[in-house]
Amino acid sequence: MATGNRLDPWVDTYATRTRGMTASAIRALFAVANRPEVVSLAGGMPNLAALPMDAVADVVDDLVRTSGATALQYGSGQGDPVLRELITEVMAEEGIVASAEDVVVTTGSQQALDLVTRVFVDPGDVVVAEAPSYVGALGVFSAYQADVVHVPMDADGLDPVALEETLTRLQAEGRRVKLLYTVPNHHNPGGVTLAAGRRAAVLETARRHGVLVLEDNPYGLLGFSGDPLPALRATDAEGVVYLGTFSKTFAPGLRVGWALAPPGVRDRLVLASEAAILCPSAFAQAAVAGYLSRHDWRGQIKAFREQYLERRDAMLAALEDHLPTASWTVPGGGFYVWLGLPAGLDAAAMLPRAVTERVAYVPGTAFYADGSGGSHLRLSYCYPSPDRITEGVRRLAEVVRAETELIDTFGAAPGATGRGPAGDAPGPDVT
Amino acid sequence: MATGNRLDPWVDTYATRTRGMTASAIRALFAVANRPEVVSLAGGMPNLAALPMDAVADVVDDLVRTSGATALQYGSGQGDPVLRELITEVMAEEGIVASAEDVVVTTGSQQALDLVTRVFVDPGDVVVAEAPSYVGALGVFSAYQADVVHVPMDADGLDPVALEETLTRLQAEGRRVKLLYTVPNHHNPGGVTLAAGRRAAVLETARRHGVLVLEDNPYGLLGFSGDPLPALRATDAEGVVYLGTFSKTFAPGLRVGWALAPPGVRDRLVLASEAAILCPSAFAQAAVAGYLSRHDWRGQIKAFREQYLERRDAMLAALEDHLPTASWTVPGGGFYVWLGLPAGLDAAAMLPRAVTERVAYVPGTAFYADGSGGSHLRLSYCYPSPDRITEGVRRLAEVVRAETELIDTFGAAPGATGRGPAGDAPGPDVT
Repeated sequence: MATGNRLDPWVDTYATRTRGMTASAIRALFAVANRPEVVSLAGGMPNLAALPMDAVADVVDDLVRTSGATALQYGSGQGDPVLRELITEVMAEEGIVASAEDVVVTTGSQQALDLVTRVFVDPGDVVVAEAPSYVGALGVFSAYQADVVHVPMDADGLDPVALEETLTRLQAEGRRVKLLYTVPNHHNPGGVTLAAGRRAAVLETARRHGVLVLEDNPYGLLGFSGDPLPALRATDAEGVVYLGTFSKTFAPGLRVGWALAPPGVRDRLVLASEAAILCPSAFAQAAVAGYLSRHDWRGQIKAFREQYLERRDAMLAALEDHLPTASWTVPGGGFYVWLGLPAGLDAAAMLPRAVTERVAYVPGTAFYADGSGGSHLRLSYCYPSPDRITEGVRRLAEVVRAETELIDTFGAAPGATGRGPAGDAPGPDVT
Repeated sequence: MATGNRLDPWVDTYATRTRGMTASAIRALFAVANRPEVVSLAGGMPNLAALPMDAVADVVDDLVRTSGATALQYGSGQGDPVLRELITEVMAEEGIVASAEDVVVTTGSQQALDLVTRVFVDPGDVVVAEAPSYVGALGVFSAYQADVVHVPMDADGLDPVALEETLTRLQAEGRRVKLLYTVPNHHNPGGVTLAAGRRAAVLETARRHGVLVLEDNPYGLLGFSGDPLPALRATDAEGVVYLGTFSKTFAPGLRVGWALAPPGVRDRLVLASEAAILCPSAFAQAAVAGYLSRHDWRGQIKAFREQYLERRDAMLAALEDHLPTASWTVPGGGFYVWLGLPAGLDAAAMLPRAVTERVAYVPGTAFYADGSGGSHLRLSYCYPSPDRITEGVRRLAEVVRAETELIDTFGAAPGATGRGPAGDAPGPDVT
């Protein structure tokens, strides 16, 4: 019998996993950060102003008029075969040769993360992930009561030697390591890319330890050189589940992503997805398929890339100008710069002051399962205009200056992690 | 270290819950049943031919042209406030007074089922549900390793006395009963409605035992009398999580459903949904909101009701004409008739022959967690035209006749459950 409390009579009846679902302390702050006077360098929203809205409107209009009775109906749990075929063409850009039979369409790639974790992870199982790692993936792993063990990155991405050491140690300890979660291209939040020369070593290490690689690749086609590296999946069809999405190359509001998986895993992902949502949106899938078929999507991605390059350059220039005491990664694509604060500063503690000064970012602590990472923060250059980016970095520099002065006067606040001596820095540090 | 097998190298690494995700034996058959020459009385697809496609096309066209940059962007995890406000108006039709603050928009109400189960159910917890019960809900409960305990229904829906006995027994056994899952209106697959006079008793019984009621209501506005009963949630805001959907009253292809929950539960549903999908589709939500705002949705539901009434009548007349040896429920709305076969027949065993005779249905076994229910089957009248319904029932009657002759000649096949003597029948039996 539930007893509950005055605020929530059901509090004693929640599942054990629900205890791991806690609202982040920064959520409340972000409600404030959404005010127009705040320059948000926090979000990962693509800049949709570059999209050809009239062309998209024509696609969805025709879709309803000519095939509304199927586009608005239930569809298959695995996803529309026409879209799955087109998805294999998108993946071919990164050297992947795959059958549409092995593609599972999901409600954004977030749902693919959820499904893979659901299919593989028992409570207490280990997921190995980069340090730092995508906050949304950490949320899924936590919801399934996985233990996340971070492996260091440097400017060339995940360190294969550290990966080998970590997997060896974990397996010696008798831990069940189920997944290696990695964002190899234009890492969120690290801003680095796994070097071509490291890719075989990462795959070989995972294979030798019997660990499935979960390759999450939202940004692979958004490299500024325009020449994507071959995906991990391109050379390993059996050991990799690859996740893709149209959220960054087309539109996140349609929530269309996918998983490409070996057949046994694929079958279970489909069953898991049917339990979770019955089927992905037939309408959203047909809209994406119509867009890919009728529009020059490769040209559109090129336009996105040029826009994001301009914004990245604005951010890097502003950092050089205003924040010479910090360190940061130089992204070759994607949306993010990972910034190391001057010693003694704490990104989480500093955030309320930053919002007061009308600039927002995500503290590094969000990207570590163990709450470390306070010496760093993530800056996004994807959404604000170059001028706003410059102004945002200028405001951030003011906050850093004021915090540094406080520390010089009174010493570091208790709990401040600082960046400390070289070698302690969590995540890639490259200026 | 994974060893796997030749077919699936990852088979030893799946989570425990994944063992409960098995492809139903009837799935393969349904691939055959989708051929045009088969009359499918199996599916639950709404008849979208009745939708005003031009009006819907105008809505989505305008949406992209006038507000594409927000409709195609990420949105909030809880869902669009404008749509949530409109959802409270839809629920007001069934006597619910609610705040948009307590509505969580989901990817169809299937995702709401998944989220509620995720938040409440630990492996081994009990979910009490009607006998029979919606197959999609049973799939979710199984995926979260819940034990489902069925409670009988009759022509007036869930039996409150049996509910009381079941909850008392389970709690005496020390079982943790987390949810009472119920489809009170135009039950899927039972075709019956929980009588107005029973509703208070069901709520009071659940409350006394500290069990949360999960009220799943896709068909509430599709009653043929046009006068919906007050929802369970209408008189109990604290003890009920209410699930709604636009899949049956507008279009399933947009995948827009919702949960209305007490505040503590709502907060956890939002967190769980953010982990599962980040946010529901902004585009789909804006499309539904546009449709509700610009179109006479109440008139459209009335048109749907009239259409489904005509089809129900065609089915009942055909059953009277061709299957007098069977028993069936008389639905006052919704999509389904629950049919009891003549003694000795087994709906699952009979299905391959039915498909050969070009008619498909869902065997009753799909609607029981324990695999019972073979004496019954579900017939849907929502999608085929009245003529096709009549022809489908005629074909079904041929199959029943042939099977009955086989039994009369050779005796019932081993494993055939039959309907047996009165009182043994699973689920409501009303002719």
